[in-house]
Amino acid sequence: MPTVVVVGDGQLARMMHTEAIELGLHTRLLAGSEDSSAAQVFGDVRLGDYTNLEDLQEVSRGAAAVTFDHEHVPNEHLEQLIDANVAVEPRPEALIYAQDKLEQRRKLESLGVPVPDYAPIDSVDAAKSFWERHEHRVCLKTTRGGYDGKGVWFPDSLDEFVELVDDMLGQDIVLYAEEKVDFVRELSAMVARTRSGEMRVWPVVESRQTDGICHVAIAPAPDLSTQLARECQNLAKLIARKLDVTGVMAVELFEYKTETGTAVSVNELAMRPHNTGHWTQDGCLTSQFEQHMRAVLDFPLGETEMVAPVTVMVNVLGGEEDPEMPMERRVKEVMLRYPEAKVHLYGKDWRPGRKIGHVNVTGYDVASTRKLAEHAAQFLVTASWT
Amino acid sequence: MPTVVVVGDGQLARMMHTEAIELGLHTRLLAGSEDSSAAQVFGDVRLGDYTNLEDLQEVSRGAAAVTFDHEHVPNEHLEQLIDANVAVEPRPEALIYAQDKLEQRRKLESLGVPVPDYAPIDSVDAAKSFWERHEHRVCLKTTRGGYDGKGVWFPDSLDEFVELVDDMLGQDIVLYAEEKVDFVRELSAMVARTRSGEMRVWPVVESRQTDGICHVAIAPAPDLSTQLARECQNLAKLIARKLDVTGVMAVELFEYKTETGTAVSVNELAMRPHNTGHWTQDGCLTSQFEQHMRAVLDFPLGETEMVAPVTVMVNVLGGEEDPEMPMERRVKEVMLRYPEAKVHLYGKDWRPGRKIGHVNVTGYDVASTRKLAEHAAQFLVTASWT
Repeated sequence: MPTVVVVGDGQLARMMHTEAIELGLHTRLLAGSEDSSAAQVFGDVRLGDYTNLEDLQEVSRGAAAVTFDHEHVPNEHLEQLIDANVAVEPRPEALIYAQDKLEQRRKLESLGVPVPDYAPIDSVDAAKSFWERHEHRVCLKTTRGGYDGKGVWFPDSLDEFVELVDDMLGQDIVLYAEEKVDFVRELSAMVARTRSGEMRVWPVVESRQTDGICHVAIAPAPDLSTQLARECQNLAKLIARKLDVTGVMAVELFEYKTETGTAVSVNELAMRPHNTGHWTQDGCLTSQFEQHMRAVLDFPLGETEMVAPVTVMVNVLGGEEDPEMPMERRVKEVMLRYPEAKVHLYGKDWRPGRKIGHVNVTGYDVASTRKLAEHAAQFLVTASWT
Repeated sequence: MPTVVVVGDGQLARMMHTEAIELGLHTRLLAGSEDSSAAQVFGDVRLGDYTNLEDLQEVSRGAAAVTFDHEHVPNEHLEQLIDANVAVEPRPEALIYAQDKLEQRRKLESLGVPVPDYAPIDSVDAAKSFWERHEHRVCLKTTRGGYDGKGVWFPDSLDEFVELVDDMLGQDIVLYAEEKVDFVRELSAMVARTRSGEMRVWPVVESRQTDGICHVAIAPAPDLSTQLARECQNLAKLIARKLDVTGVMAVELFEYKTETGTAVSVNELAMRPHNTGHWTQDGCLTSQFEQHMRAVLDFPLGETEMVAPVTVMVNVLGGEEDPEMPMERRVKEVMLRYPEAKVHLYGKDWRPGRKIGHVNVTGYDVASTRKLAEHAAQFLVTASWT
């Protein structure tokens, strides 16, 4: 059976290994430290730096596919690996659109994919003009490096906007602005695609954010019309095909009101398993992690049917303080109260706001399933049932 | 989070690691070789010999629990670990009944658990007497070391029986005989139990053997009366409690005809995750491997409800010859044809009859689900769809 190399040592890599074990695959990890989330559990771990070409070359030796748990490996290194016949999945030609948000906006627009209005902000004048155009409803973003609410600002005034722009342009940070979408909720459409072109989508989920971090995912998105659900899935497939994405991709969407109902526009792309897909581990016949392993190897993809009417995922995010009660006891309390809760932990120490795990719960109705999942996750964070 | 040590490097240990990763546990493996099924995928592997006390002591350092993927660790070593305050789960006082079948028969009989008639065979005379008592329907077994059809004989004649007995007694092999049960089928009732005494059972499955090796498991056992299903589960719970078993235990049963219907008697006990429980990975809210990890840590147990009406597991057993088609291609063919099949492989090379993987399929009716699982597994073995 083939060897898959995973570059990046976080929980996404960790959960890829879980599925790779069952598929009988060999996995090899390029990790920054030996106590990282993924390095704790992989059998074959190479310590190195994902920005170092030699480390990448060394870890890729003999691999049937090289994939990632983040999008930050320098594309010029990936090009060199590809020149040496390494199967890098996804390829830099696709990854660029997950790395550079302005390039992504331009590309999606050219494909006819709905995106919020945007403009590059390379001067204070450009900022002022964009501010006027959108009647002060503006979001400023760095084109690169933002995630989980970082690299995103919502200025309250033109002065604040101009000050931010002036300051960052002075630091040579590349910026663009978007209209601030007055959305009713956020959705996520996930798709997997192989090099041969096979694609499979999962049901569209509703994603709830807290401070820019995904906090809750509800599958399927409640009360989403089948028509709009299909549109989201088709957008994900279109983007995957046109951008030649391989592996799993998440398309995060805004759902906003129109005169006749609601419509969607694309917020973000992530070309890897994604937080809004963790629910598939316990909610679908094939999880995003198994599907990613299959997709990057160009194996046929698995059936994505749900195994229960509803699945809710709630993140376990490190709280402001770490409770005295050890995590082991918290887990035991949750398991005692909710034997149906699926607790997933990443082997990570507490830090405020850090993703240290998630809870999946399957059920029959959204309200009670969500309540249970939130209650369980909250206890893991706070050690309190209130 | 605590550390669990697993002694034994086969596929059961491998699949325990899968679940331990998601629970955020630390795992450590005592493996005989670094390319064994489990050693390929664990993060923390110690090479050593499970019959060597020092190796066991070394690997157990700092562990919250020590458990096994087989029952062959010398009990005197386990006693020494326990004396040094290591939580060995299950304990030797329980394990002895999985190790020594004659002791097990005596114990189960004393508990009122139905077992086939049996007798120790310590002489040719004892053999002759047992042969007469059961009108030639006799099964000869070694008290220790048998598994997967090994250590079991069904003599066709008294001469053959006497010859076998004479030969093995001459080699100081301890023997006993059982009546050969004219069963209609084999069942398996699995239970998990914690040190605190919590127990959970899974639905009873029908287990089909080929040459003494489990080949197919059908969950739930088709057409089993709820009354008899409950009786099997209650027997499993009774045995677990009375023998003070911790972790997962499989109770293999014969279902045989009576004048008024059918009844069961116990065939074998296994005090660890078991082949007849592999279906729970894809068929239940909590798999036997997750449950075993929880049970040996004295964590509360998970809900065992099925996620589909039917799940069928079929083993991938090495055929007489290994087909030329590489396993990677066989897997791709199966995935292409059956995207709903869950393929589990153990990282083991081919050998005739060797367990190298299994296929789980969930569905709505037994016949089509079983056909699909058998077809998929058969292709993995033979590389042919005929």
